[in-house]
Amino acid sequence: MSALFDRLSDAQNARIDDLMARMTWEDKLNQLQVTFAMSDDEQDARAASGIGALFWPMSAAATNRIQRVAVEQSRLGIPLLIGLDVIHGQFTTFPIPLAMAASLEPADVECAARTSAEEARSGGVNWTFAPMIDVSRDPRWGRVAEGFGEDPLITSRMAAGSVAGFQTDDLAGPATMAACAKHFIGYGAGEGGRDYNTVDMSELRLRSTYLPSFASAVDAGVATVMASFNTFNGVPVHANRYLLTDVLRGELGFAGAVVGDASGVENLVPHGLAHGLAEAATLAYRAGLSIEMGGNMYSLDHGALLDEGDPEVVARVEEACRIVLRLKMAMGLFDNPYVDEATEVNAPSDHTRQRALNVARHCPVLLTNDGTLPLSRSMRRVLLAGPGADSLDHLGAWVQQAFAAPPTETLADALGELLGSDGPELVSVGQMDPLAIIDADIERVRDAAAGCDVIVLALEEPSQLTGEATSRASLRLPGGQERLIAAATATGIPVVVVLTNGRPLVVADWIDQPNAVLEAWHLGIEGPRAIADILLGHVSPSGRLPMAFPRHEGQLPACYDAHENTGRPASVGGSMRKPTFDVGLDGPANLQEFFTSKYRDLDLGPQFSFGHGLSYADLSLDTRLGTDSISLADLDAGATITVEVTLSNASSIDVEWTPLVFVTDVVASIAPAVRRLADFKRLRIRAHGSATWRCQIGAEQLGFHTGDARGFIVEPGEFRIHVAGTTDTATHTLTVTAR
Amino acid sequence: MSALFDRLSDAQNARIDDLMARMTWEDKLNQLQVTFAMSDDEQDARAASGIGALFWPMSAAATNRIQRVAVEQSRLGIPLLIGLDVIHGQFTTFPIPLAMAASLEPADVECAARTSAEEARSGGVNWTFAPMIDVSRDPRWGRVAEGFGEDPLITSRMAAGSVAGFQTDDLAGPATMAACAKHFIGYGAGEGGRDYNTVDMSELRLRSTYLPSFASAVDAGVATVMASFNTFNGVPVHANRYLLTDVLRGELGFAGAVVGDASGVENLVPHGLAHGLAEAATLAYRAGLSIEMGGNMYSLDHGALLDEGDPEVVARVEEACRIVLRLKMAMGLFDNPYVDEATEVNAPSDHTRQRALNVARHCPVLLTNDGTLPLSRSMRRVLLAGPGADSLDHLGAWVQQAFAAPPTETLADALGELLGSDGPELVSVGQMDPLAIIDADIERVRDAAAGCDVIVLALEEPSQLTGEATSRASLRLPGGQERLIAAATATGIPVVVVLTNGRPLVVADWIDQPNAVLEAWHLGIEGPRAIADILLGHVSPSGRLPMAFPRHEGQLPACYDAHENTGRPASVGGSMRKPTFDVGLDGPANLQEFFTSKYRDLDLGPQFSFGHGLSYADLSLDTRLGTDSISLADLDAGATITVEVTLSNASSIDVEWTPLVFVTDVVASIAPAVRRLADFKRLRIRAHGSATWRCQIGAEQLGFHTGDARGFIVEPGEFRIHVAGTTDTATHTLTVTAR
Repeated sequence: MSALFDRLSDAQNARIDDLMARMTWEDKLNQLQVTFAMSDDEQDARAASGIGALFWPMSAAATNRIQRVAVEQSRLGIPLLIGLDVIHGQFTTFPIPLAMAASLEPADVECAARTSAEEARSGGVNWTFAPMIDVSRDPRWGRVAEGFGEDPLITSRMAAGSVAGFQTDDLAGPATMAACAKHFIGYGAGEGGRDYNTVDMSELRLRSTYLPSFASAVDAGVATVMASFNTFNGVPVHANRYLLTDVLRGELGFAGAVVGDASGVENLVPHGLAHGLAEAATLAYRAGLSIEMGGNMYSLDHGALLDEGDPEVVARVEEACRIVLRLKMAMGLFDNPYVDEATEVNAPSDHTRQRALNVARHCPVLLTNDGTLPLSRSMRRVLLAGPGADSLDHLGAWVQQAFAAPPTETLADALGELLGSDGPELVSVGQMDPLAIIDADIERVRDAAAGCDVIVLALEEPSQLTGEATSRASLRLPGGQERLIAAATATGIPVVVVLTNGRPLVVADWIDQPNAVLEAWHLGIEGPRAIADILLGHVSPSGRLPMAFPRHEGQLPACYDAHENTGRPASVGGSMRKPTFDVGLDGPANLQEFFTSKYRDLDLGPQFSFGHGLSYADLSLDTRLGTDSISLADLDAGATITVEVTLSNASSIDVEWTPLVFVTDVVASIAPAVRRLADFKRLRIRAHGSATWRCQIGAEQLGFHTGDARGFIVEPGEFRIHVAGTTDTATHTLTVTAR
Repeated sequence: MSALFDRLSDAQNARIDDLMARMTWEDKLNQLQVTFAMSDDEQDARAASGIGALFWPMSAAATNRIQRVAVEQSRLGIPLLIGLDVIHGQFTTFPIPLAMAASLEPADVECAARTSAEEARSGGVNWTFAPMIDVSRDPRWGRVAEGFGEDPLITSRMAAGSVAGFQTDDLAGPATMAACAKHFIGYGAGEGGRDYNTVDMSELRLRSTYLPSFASAVDAGVATVMASFNTFNGVPVHANRYLLTDVLRGELGFAGAVVGDASGVENLVPHGLAHGLAEAATLAYRAGLSIEMGGNMYSLDHGALLDEGDPEVVARVEEACRIVLRLKMAMGLFDNPYVDEATEVNAPSDHTRQRALNVARHCPVLLTNDGTLPLSRSMRRVLLAGPGADSLDHLGAWVQQAFAAPPTETLADALGELLGSDGPELVSVGQMDPLAIIDADIERVRDAAAGCDVIVLALEEPSQLTGEATSRASLRLPGGQERLIAAATATGIPVVVVLTNGRPLVVADWIDQPNAVLEAWHLGIEGPRAIADILLGHVSPSGRLPMAFPRHEGQLPACYDAHENTGRPASVGGSMRKPTFDVGLDGPANLQEFFTSKYRDLDLGPQFSFGHGLSYADLSLDTRLGTDSISLADLDAGATITVEVTLSNASSIDVEWTPLVFVTDVVASIAPAVRRLADFKRLRIRAHGSATWRCQIGAEQLGFHTGDARGFIVEPGEFRIHVAGTTDTATHTLTVTAR
């Protein structure tokens, strides 16, 4: 079991026992729910009745007031959990999680979470419904913006960083929030990328791909976990005892609270699992839920949703209630549920803006570049055009629109400021609706382009097209924005495209036209400045794609390890014209290239693979394997192989870059993944200098889940160690001997 | 166990025992393989060495010759299995299986298989690698053309019909072929619709969706089953003991031979399961393979691939060899391996052409029609245009190009013939490359349209773009053919589009433009005549889609029961503009329509759902449920509920139509499928008459697979019985009581 509640003193545990003994059935149900925001009077009445949790009432004063009601007016005086979705910022919005994944820097995610906790807890929020650590391999799903991409390892590291940032190592600290690892489990695997949709997978895939990030969050001490909306192999997770109890508590050792997603228990009725709310709640508590989100377990109007007739439900409610009390005790809420209203934060500070800028600079991914970027200061005139030129839509999905601070400036502002009065003249053509580019927009760009040395097109997937309930079937730039690219490139003037968006896009129809394309994501409050820094070369791009860009929506899934080795891997792409043959009579042997796993109408692989990204620097890779052979026994004893990775920078600029180390098990009893990310580390490489990282490869990196009783194993044999620098890569062979 | 070999006499079994006792290890391995076609000398040498099976050497005489070598020159004189992929015709090509699924008439599939067996066996083929009964829900996969669509029940019925047609009820009959149910299992579920790709699914899905068609084939007595290329939850099926032995033999009771797919054992090496061919074969035989396809087990050059070192492999080889001998014995090959060369069929007959025409008339699906179809004979001039006007590309995937008879005529020929000399004038504009429509093609159509009363556009997905190794990422008409639709509809003349293709297409961009659209599929040798019959109203369209047409490639999967009920079903489609809200603070309750499972950029549901199809007749539906309540005990005892379905025909033409009966379990312990097809039956409804069908709903239709130890169960509660006529539907509620 996790150490989450190990620090509770005997006195604290005794106090919990005492409370449990005094609580009625109704008191317990009331503790096991969180309601959405409501009027002050309703909140007060709920708090006075002994409810366990409320959504944040929007200020420190209001929070203190309802905590006071809970503590002073409810029968048992139990303080409240105060929840809110603080995903990538409360007042100071950081890049969306998908963008932060591109930074490959867990410390950035920790910084964002820490800042969020400091700001939100100052106003009374003590529980955030973050991080979202659903591995997501389908860019149609809108919530990929909230997650850390397609890779289990990156997601696991970002999960740990996020939990550390929100909770620090002291859950009772004055500026912490209890984190919530969500959504357990498989929510990112909804069929067709359609939000809330059916999830079906093998035990193998569950353990190989979707469980590791939750194991990481639990190991990091996450206080709560949220159940996901989806069915999992036929049983909605909110009612899935196997997942919530056997796997989450049994295998992962999670000791904290399992909260339902919004109306997730109610949703068991349309799921076809329950006839009504009471049956739904019975199923959910039998499965292992701790806290219902929606406020249905006990209300002043309807009383208790469940009665005490079912001993199993009674035992589960008892257990859940004890977990909630332990959590509140561990968070120090019984000692002091209040916050200091005098130090309440209501806006970003210079310090938090700087933090957000530092993180934002790490996230953009340079997709293509013929040398046009960075922009030369010797140009006379720069045209910045497109809906993103003067847009403030940089915050991305999941910001609290009621109070999150808008971006500091537009891209036009940021670029103008950096160009300064002595630099090239900046012409800006904005005021466009990204969902409806009109002919006049095209004309304005054409007209303004005359006499310019470069056209920077700022194109957008609006934030509102990303996030929850925002699945898209088409992944192209919306609103006809591709027409702007055609018009700009037709001028013959060099064109740079800057994309601000929340998911991988399909760019095949135009990607070869511009001279450079920068994937900037929704970068948060300092996004425009970070983009301008990169466009002008003050900062070299250092992001790598945490999720592939497919060539076509019909190519999904396009993730790098989506498939095991097939028996017929392709080495060349497809062709619409077919050779003449007769497989029945001729056999396949003489037509090997035809009978391979590919699309007839696509080149091989995604448009931009996982890990793709370019730097402004000329980085060369040198790698060395400490040994080319290791025994299974040594691995079992914890031995590792060192992969020494050196990046040398032949350029005159300091840069950061993150080499990726992949492992391939050549032959195994389960068809091995084509490759798996084994490790990564962001390095700083000085101009004309180098940086060396010694990566350790051990059993954890060489083994695999079997999905059966054998569990996680390492099998002897050959392994390929593949190191991806920028454009150059290195491959080594490692032998694991049986003894 | 299935009754496959129950008819063997004691003498036959004794002969098998005797042979087994006399066979060396090499003899046994030699029996357990089939090689592709090769030179006469090589074939003779292989036959003389005692190989078990060869691909067809292209004539009765050649087959008799190598059988004679096998029987007279090999040491043990065991006759040969002579295999060939006879999928939907040997000389007389019937519609592709997907088209035959649209007919909803298992007797049609049986007729096609019977005809194939008569033709092919007359030339010596005694083993066909058909039917393909992979449920296929991804139209990107090229092999959907070879299967029976997205529904397990339709596929199961067509599987049984096909086996009956190939094998009759006497495997030793003079005009039978041993059938081969393929591909076991999950091959239709390859990720991304990419051929040969990874398959991952739960036990629940395996049993609910993919296993039923194989259970049906085994129950129908199929003699052989082919292992599929794909991995299944990490283990390639060729090496998957759980699937090949526990499920196929244990659960389904299959007693026949399991054959590998072409080079499927070799493919275990690139799969990463085996270091080389011997290890691959060891894995395959341990898993339960009977016959290797490729000829690697024993060859004259290399001898035996495996040695007798592993007792488990020896036992498995022994078992496989006995199965092969039993099969040959049951097929009567020991009594007479030869065919009568005098009666060899080498071409279609009038009789088989008529059969093919009868079946082809059942398959087209009328997608849209504003009354323009059927074409009026009072028109003066009809323009038939497009690549399909004078094309002979109607046979579809998987015909033996070396000898399959071409279509009897082109669509222009067939239409001209039916219009006759006294009908409207037919103008035909063809000679177009379906993969590259050029401006001149458009011009020719525009010019020819002047003065015409209707334009019939015949558009094609070429056969070569369907079938194996033919995944497509884009599902649109290829080659710019959509431009022909735009040009034709721009004339203002009524436009009818006829599609000949092998998979569901994406038609969203143009489907609303023509006055009528007929999905004609690749209909085989008499396709043009069948299409002409329907265009002119000699036959009313009666096909219903066996697979949904998605609105966009990004909508996949679009099958009708792909998902369980979600917790947030959508009732309206998506919108690109989002309402303003704050879910964290407001909760989802007031924005229910936003937080539902859909795409922001698509209307709900597929473009054309499973079961869609129009008739020329005005058919009305009347339904009655025999009882609205039944007990679980009665169901267990075999009782059924009668659903009386009456179709009345208010039109003055005789038609055929197939009502579909769906069942929905309203609440269950596994989130129930939105609905499941429970029964269907093709009816003939006379002009101004009616037809009644009494469908029986019992435990089989009301129960579901749990995917766990509970197996297949019926749970008490409410069920919805949904009957789909043409455009009208009826719904009844049935209650299953606990006792």
